Amino acid sequence: SGIPKSVDAATTTLNGYGNGCLAGNHILSVAQFTRQQLHALFNVAYEMRQMVQRVGYYDLLKGKVMATLFYEPSTRTCSSFAAAMQRLGGSVLPIQEMMSHSSVAKGESLSDTVRTVSCYSDVIVIRHFEKGAAQTAAYVAGKPVINAGDGIGEHPTQALLDIFTIREELGTVNGLTITFVGDLKNGRTVHSLALLLCLYHHVRIRYVSPESLRMPEDVLEKIASKGIDQREYRDLAQVLSETDVLYVTRIQKERFSSQQEYEKCQQGYVITPKLLTRAKEHMIVMHPLPRVQEIATQVDQDPRAVYFRQMEYGMYVRMALLAMILGKA
Amino acid sequence: SGIPKSVDAATTTLNGYGNGCLAGNHILSVAQFTRQQLHALFNVAYEMRQMVQRVGYYDLLKGKVMATLFYEPSTRTCSSFAAAMQRLGGSVLPIQEMMSHSSVAKGESLSDTVRTVSCYSDVIVIRHFEKGAAQTAAYVAGKPVINAGDGIGEHPTQALLDIFTIREELGTVNGLTITFVGDLKNGRTVHSLALLLCLYHHVRIRYVSPESLRMPEDVLEKIASKGIDQREYRDLAQVLSETDVLYVTRIQKERFSSQQEYEKCQQGYVITPKLLTRAKEHMIVMHPLPRVQEIATQVDQDPRAVYFRQMEYGMYVRMALLAMILGKA
Amino acid sequence: SGIPKSVDAATTTLNGYGNGCLAGNHILSVAQFTRQQLHALFNVAYEMRQMVQRVGYYDLLKGKVMATLFYEPSTRTCSSFAAAMQRLGGSVLPIQEMMSHSSVAKGESLSDTVRTVSCYSDVIVIRHFEKGAAQTAAYVAGKPVINAGDGIGEHPTQALLDIFTIREELGTVNGLTITFVGDLKNGRTVHSLALLLCLYHHVRIRYVSPESLRMPEDVLEKIASKGIDQREYRDLAQVLSETDVLYVTRIQKERFSSQQEYEKCQQGYVITPKLLTRAKEHMIVMHPLPRVQEIATQVDQDPRAVYFRQMEYGMYVRMALLAMILGKA
Repeated sequence: SGIPKSVDAATTTLNGYGNGCLAGNHILSVAQFTRQQLHALFNVAYEMRQMVQRVGYYDLLKGKVMATLFYEPSTRTCSSFAAAMQRLGGSVLPIQEMMSHSSVAKGESLSDTVRTVSCYSDVIVIRHFEKGAAQTAAYVAGKPVINAGDGIGEHPTQALLDIFTIREELGTVNGLTITFVGDLKNGRTVHSLALLLCLYHHVRIRYVSPESLRMPEDVLEKIASKGIDQREYRDLAQVLSETDVLYVTRIQKERFSSQQEYEKCQQGYVITPKLLTRAKEHMIVMHPLPRVQEIATQVDQDPRAVYFRQMEYGMYVRMALLAMILGKA
Repeated sequence: SGIPKSVDAATTTLNGYGNGCLAGNHILSVAQFTRQQLHALFNVAYEMRQMVQRVGYYDLLKGKVMATLFYEPSTRTCSSFAAAMQRLGGSVLPIQEMMSHSSVAKGESLSDTVRTVSCYSDVIVIRHFEKGAAQTAAYVAGKPVINAGDGIGEHPTQALLDIFTIREELGTVNGLTITFVGDLKNGRTVHSLALLLCLYHHVRIRYVSPESLRMPEDVLEKIASKGIDQREYRDLAQVLSETDVLYVTRIQKERFSSQQEYEKCQQGYVITPKLLTRAKEHMIVMHPLPRVQEIATQVDQDPRAVYFRQMEYGMYVRMALLAMILGKA
Repeated sequence: SGIPKSVDAATTTLNGYGNGCLAGNHILSVAQFTRQQLHALFNVAYEMRQMVQRVGYYDLLKGKVMATLFYEPSTRTCSSFAAAMQRLGGSVLPIQEMMSHSSVAKGESLSDTVRTVSCYSDVIVIRHFEKGAAQTAAYVAGKPVINAGDGIGEHPTQALLDIFTIREELGTVNGLTITFVGDLKNGRTVHSLALLLCLYHHVRIRYVSPESLRMPEDVLEKIASKGIDQREYRDLAQVLSETDVLYVTRIQKERFSSQQEYEKCQQGYVITPKLLTRAKEHMIVMHPLPRVQEIATQVDQDPRAVYFRQMEYGMYVRMALLAMILGKA
C-alpha cells in the first residue's frame, strides 16, 4: 500500500522524557546544560533514532519554520539541522547564500538581520565567524536561537552529539577514558566536549598533541577545577591501550610555517589499522569530520570506526533539541 | 500533547473575504489594484496574521509549488515569500543561486527560463534587474507571476505591505498625513506606495529630501492628477509635528560624488529619539529595511518604531496574495 | 472550499504498474534498463502526469528526504528533481551551494561526503564533473543513488524523459525515424538516448552534424551491434521529410577555433519555420534545453515544437523514478 506506515506514529506525542525542560530556551553554550537536561535530551534523541529507523519521520513540528542563518558555509551542520527539521515535518528557510551578497553588503547589522529573520521563523540556527554572535542574536531574536558555531567560541550541538554517540555506542559515558588527539589548541569542538565530559562520573581525559597545538591552559584549568583526571602526552602509543574513546581531530596545514613541518607533525598522528591493533576491542574512534588524512580510509571497515554513525547521531540530537525547544517534547 | 493544535483550522477554508477576486491573476504593478481588491486582500492578510499567531500555519496550499526566480539577490523579499508559502503548507523551489552560473551564462533567454520554471511550479515569484522583466515573464508563463521587483520598475508587494502596516497599526489609512523622507528620486518603493495611497480618502503626502533626490516630476504629476494634497520640503522639522506616518528611506552613498557630500546630506535626515520628541504620540515610523544609519538604533525601543513589525506584516500580505492567486481565498 | 480536492487521492496507492521492479535500485546508466522496466516506469510516469494535472500532488513520499549533491550547477535538472520530490510530499535537502566552499575545499573525498549525506537522506541525486562519480557514490552510499550527469559519462534520466516524451506525443517509439542534429560528438544526452532507442522495434536513427562533431565511432558500433538502421548525413534537408522525431542539440562556441568558423557551422543547423514546411505534419521537434540560437523562437508556436512540454515530462519521469526506487510504486 502507498499509505505511509507512520500515519499514526506521526501524530502521537513523545513519552514526555523532555518534560518541557528546554521549551523556549536558546542553545548557546554547553555550559548551560545540567546533567539532568542532558539525560532528558538524550532520551528524546534515542526515541528520534528509533522513530526514524522504524517509520522515517514525525509530524511533531508540522507548520514550524526553522531559519538557518549561516554567515560562513558549513555543509555538514547546515544539512544536519535541515534534515532534522524536515524529518519532524517542519520547513527550512535558508538565509545563508544571500547574506554574502545583499543585506550584509549593504551594511546591515547582525541585530537587524536577526530581528527580520525572527519575523518569519519559529527558531533560528545561526553560524557566524565571530565569537559572541549567537549571544547577540539571542538577545534580540524573540525566538529561540541555536548556536551552530560562533568563530573561536562554541559549537554546542557538536559536543552534544559527541556525547550521545559515546552513550549509544558504549552504553555509558561514566568511567571511560577519552583521548583527544590532533590539534587541541584551535578546535572549539574539543574544548566544548571536554567541558561537557566533566558532568559525568569517573571520566579520565587524555590529550595527545604536538607541543605547539596543546590544549589551552584556561580550558585545562577549568577541567582541573572539576576534579577530572586529565593528562597530556606527545605520543599516542603511551595512552592508546587504555583508551575507550579516541577522538581524532584534523591538523590544519595553515597552522604551520612550512609544508615540511606540517607533514612531519601530522604523520605522527595518523590513525591506521596497524595502530589500532594496539587498541581495546570495544573502544571507538570518533572524528567531527571532514576527515582528510588523519584517519586512513582502511580504518573505515573497522567496527570501532564510528565517525559516520556519529553524523547520523547528530541528526537525532538536533531533532531532539528542535522538538524540545519548540515545546513538543 | 504532540498533536498540533491546528489540525482543524488547517483544513478549514477562509471566510470568503477574497471572493476569488485575484484567482489566476498576475501581480505586476500597484496600478492593477482597485480599492475593493485591496480591501479583500487586507482582510485575508488580517486572517493570516490571526492564524499564524494562534496556530502557526494553514494547509491551504498543500502540494502547491512556488518557484522563486531571483536574478538579483534579495534576502528579505525572498525569505518573506518562502516563509509565507511554507506557512500555507506549500513548497518552495528556489532557482536564484543557479541562475548566475548555468543557464543564463549559457545565454538562455528570460522567456525560455520562465517557460521551463512554469513546467515545475504553480506560481512564480520573479525578481529581475530590468524594468519590464516581470511583464515579459507573465506573458509566457502559463502560471501566475508575482513581480518581486524589476529594476527601476515596481515592487508591488512592498507597497501593499506598507499599506497593510499602516492599516494594522493606525486602524485606517484615510485622513492620514504620510511623510516620505530620504532618497525619493531612486526608490521604486516610495513611488509605488505614493500611487497606492491615492486610492484612500483625504490622504496628505509630504516629501522631505535633498534637492538632488526629489520625487520625480512624473510621479508628482500622476499624484496631483488624483487630487491628492502633496507638498515638498527640505527640512523634516517643518512637517514632523503633523505627520502620522513617517516613511524613512535609505540615502545611498553611491548617489553622491564624494563621501563628504554624502555625509553632509545624510546627517540632515537621521531619525533620533530627540527628533521624535517633536512627533505625535500616535504616529508611526516605517522603513523598508535594511536600515543603515538613517534611523538611530535607540529609536528601536520607541513604540512608534514599527519597521520590524512591518517585515512581519509583509509575510501576512504575501500569504494572502498566494492564497488568493491560487484560488484558495 | 479551502479543503484540497486531493485529500483522498493523496493517500491512495498507485495501481501497481511498477511492481516494485526498481525498489532500492540505483539509477546509474541507461544500460541497466530492460524494455519491461521502461514499460513499468513510463506507466507510472503517465499516472503521475494524470495526478499532477488533476490534483496537483501525491503524499506518496511524505517524510522522505532527497539530497541533491551537485558538484556543478544545473538549474533544470536540479529544479526538476526538487519539484518531483515536493509534488510527492517529500523534502529536498540541497547540498550543492555549500560544496564549492567548504568540505570539498577542505579536501574531503567524494566517498566521505556521500557517506555523510546518506546519513541524512533516503535517496541521493548526484551531479559531478567526473565520469564514474555516480558509480563511486553508489558504492558507499547505503541509500539509492540517481546519476544526474557525471561529466562525459551518462545522464540517464534525460534519456528516459526523452523516450517518455516521444511515447506521450506520438503514442509509440516503435517504427519511428529519429534524427539527431547538431553536436553529436560531445553530447552525452544524445549517446544515452541513442542506446536506449535500441530497446524498441524497427527504429531508424539518422545523424546530421558537421564532420568535426560526428557521433563517436564507439557509440555507432554499439548501436550497429543491435542491428539498428542508422545513417549519417551532413545536410538536414536530406533526411528531414522522413523524420518523426527531430532531436536538436546545441553547438557550443567553445568547440570551434574561431567565432567565424562557429557561425558558419552553426548556421547550417538552425531550425526555422521555413525549414519545417518540409517536415511531416505529425513529427515533433525536441531539444534538451537550454536553447540558444539553434531553434528560432518563431518555431515555439508550431504545435510540433514539444521542447517545453519535454521539460514537464521530465518531472513526471523523475516522480516515477523516485516513487519506484523508494518502494512506493
